[in-house]
Amino acid sequence: MTTFSKNDTHFMSLALQLARKGRYGVASNPMVGCVIVKDNKILAEGYHQTFGKEHAEINALTQINHQTDGATLYVTLEPCAHQGKTPPCAQTIIDASVKEVVIATLDPNPLVSGKGVAILADAGIVVKTGLLENESKELNRGFIKRMETGLPFVTCKIAMSIDGKTSMASGQSKWITGKEARQDVQKLRAKNQAILTGSSTILADNPLMTVRLDGVDSTPLRVVIDGKNQITDTTLKIFSNDANTKIFNSGNTQLNKAGKLDLHHVLVQLAQQNINSVLLEAGPKLIGAMVEEGLVDEFIFYTAPILMGSHATSMMALAIQQMDECLALNIRDIRMVGNDIKITAILK
Amino acid sequence: MTTFSKNDTHFMSLALQLARKGRYGVASNPMVGCVIVKDNKILAEGYHQTFGKEHAEINALTQINHQTDGATLYVTLEPCAHQGKTPPCAQTIIDASVKEVVIATLDPNPLVSGKGVAILADAGIVVKTGLLENESKELNRGFIKRMETGLPFVTCKIAMSIDGKTSMASGQSKWITGKEARQDVQKLRAKNQAILTGSSTILADNPLMTVRLDGVDSTPLRVVIDGKNQITDTTLKIFSNDANTKIFNSGNTQLNKAGKLDLHHVLVQLAQQNINSVLLEAGPKLIGAMVEEGLVDEFIFYTAPILMGSHATSMMALAIQQMDECLALNIRDIRMVGNDIKITAILK
Repeated sequence: MTTFSKNDTHFMSLALQLARKGRYGVASNPMVGCVIVKDNKILAEGYHQTFGKEHAEINALTQINHQTDGATLYVTLEPCAHQGKTPPCAQTIIDASVKEVVIATLDPNPLVSGKGVAILADAGIVVKTGLLENESKELNRGFIKRMETGLPFVTCKIAMSIDGKTSMASGQSKWITGKEARQDVQKLRAKNQAILTGSSTILADNPLMTVRLDGVDSTPLRVVIDGKNQITDTTLKIFSNDANTKIFNSGNTQLNKAGKLDLHHVLVQLAQQNINSVLLEAGPKLIGAMVEEGLVDEFIFYTAPILMGSHATSMMALAIQQMDECLALNIRDIRMVGNDIKITAILK
Repeated sequence: MTTFSKNDTHFMSLALQLARKGRYGVASNPMVGCVIVKDNKILAEGYHQTFGKEHAEINALTQINHQTDGATLYVTLEPCAHQGKTPPCAQTIIDASVKEVVIATLDPNPLVSGKGVAILADAGIVVKTGLLENESKELNRGFIKRMETGLPFVTCKIAMSIDGKTSMASGQSKWITGKEARQDVQKLRAKNQAILTGSSTILADNPLMTVRLDGVDSTPLRVVIDGKNQITDTTLKIFSNDANTKIFNSGNTQLNKAGKLDLHHVLVQLAQQNINSVLLEAGPKLIGAMVEEGLVDEFIFYTAPILMGSHATSMMALAIQQMDECLALNIRDIRMVGNDIKITAILK
């Protein structure tokens, strides 16, 4: 197993921090950070800032005119080996006389994974991989999932009461959680490339479904599951100019055996449009169907300090009969957001 | 408003810590701690250890042979003015030449509140009250509630899934939470003077309902609401010799207008038996009825990281129609207990 020094870990941490700066700019590309170091001194830093523009390594190398004179380059994702929108980074690194390259994680795309490492190693560069690999994978979990499975990473957001309800029997549901939690949802939206909901939510609430966050320029695609082809009114707010909108209905999506829209096919179509991350904000039926088909990866529950009672509607329409069929989650984080409890959990 | 020094706060904090040591011993008495200080040095410490035995002040004074020579006495509850199971503390304090008495909170019993202070002040002692008053009241919230209202403080414990369910439609419900949470419930039981449940829980699970905690000697009264007079089998575990048991049925409890056992009257009877604190561990119907009648003060939710689905039974049978009728809670604490989330909340 490759061993890394304390300094290696320090510089890779820094590269990960840099990578995160790209979170609202890289769209379907992965977030990548890079630090170039010689004699324990940082010569240059870079990160991938904007979709289609320079990769992190190039942004760092440009700062020192591509002359490293035997430095070590830390990068959170394997340098690319192919000519894409930009020239291959592996060759540029070789040309800049880098002595050693430390990589957090290999490229998840099975068609290119390992090729960057091979080019570097063939040129006599010392290549080490796997430093802070989990942290790097977590950062680009949507990109990685799409590369590996052809599906986006789906986060399901639920604003509920402590007793697990999301609306009264009458349908009444507005303002369960407080304004801090609703503001937090805006950040969640900004971090996702698409927001997915159902036609009943659109028809009941006529939401705008955009990001309203000062200083953040993020316009996730608005996606509606419209199995009954009910979304015909083009004056609905979802058709505003603020962001693009995609309606999935029986006209453009295959049906499953039960005659309903095939949700898996919807997600495949989104992935084919290079969408890595989807935020599901929907009613109990669509959430239940998505969960039942194994299409949800993560839950974020905003739990308001209220009891809505047993007549109210449960957060998720999901038929489970036996205790051993219950869905098991891993709690990743709990914290207060205003007066509400925010619980982040992934499906085991 | 009375002002207190940093040292005053320090010594009263210490007295509160001492008071807590009595938590498994004082039964229906309040927990009280006492620190005697002269020239910023602690001369003696004491706390009320055992129901019916010496009060905190006396335990402290005994250590210095009742000779304080002008010291300051910090005590978390007003010294008593009456001859009870022990002589009045106020007079003992005067006899020990105490110069100043600092009190966290007055006696909540309206029949005696303020009398101890008056006796001390009449004897020329400087008396200050209200230091860390909220902390002292929190410590004895059950005792105070019983004194002020004639009802015990009721904590409702619920072990549930993240979606607010406590059993499958079939009734299956065992082991929703993990063993750390179940161990935590044992501590909760030990801190309460009674554990309240319904006959359906007894008949379905035949629980022992005792405290099983190494090194802790606490035997809360086992209380069963048996509106249909179904608890007749004396071989049920609830009739074991480990603790006392009280069954409330139509033979010993008045009925309400709906012809059901009057739960308020049950709690009044428990308070009349000097029970300050009740832990409600019951099914959704009894919990719902207790909440509906305003008899629950606090909730402790142990939330397991599972989803039980919409066919499962909600934690509480409670008919609420409108959002503005929802019950509002104040979250007091959230923490992980093993893999479960423990949420402590009081009703607003």
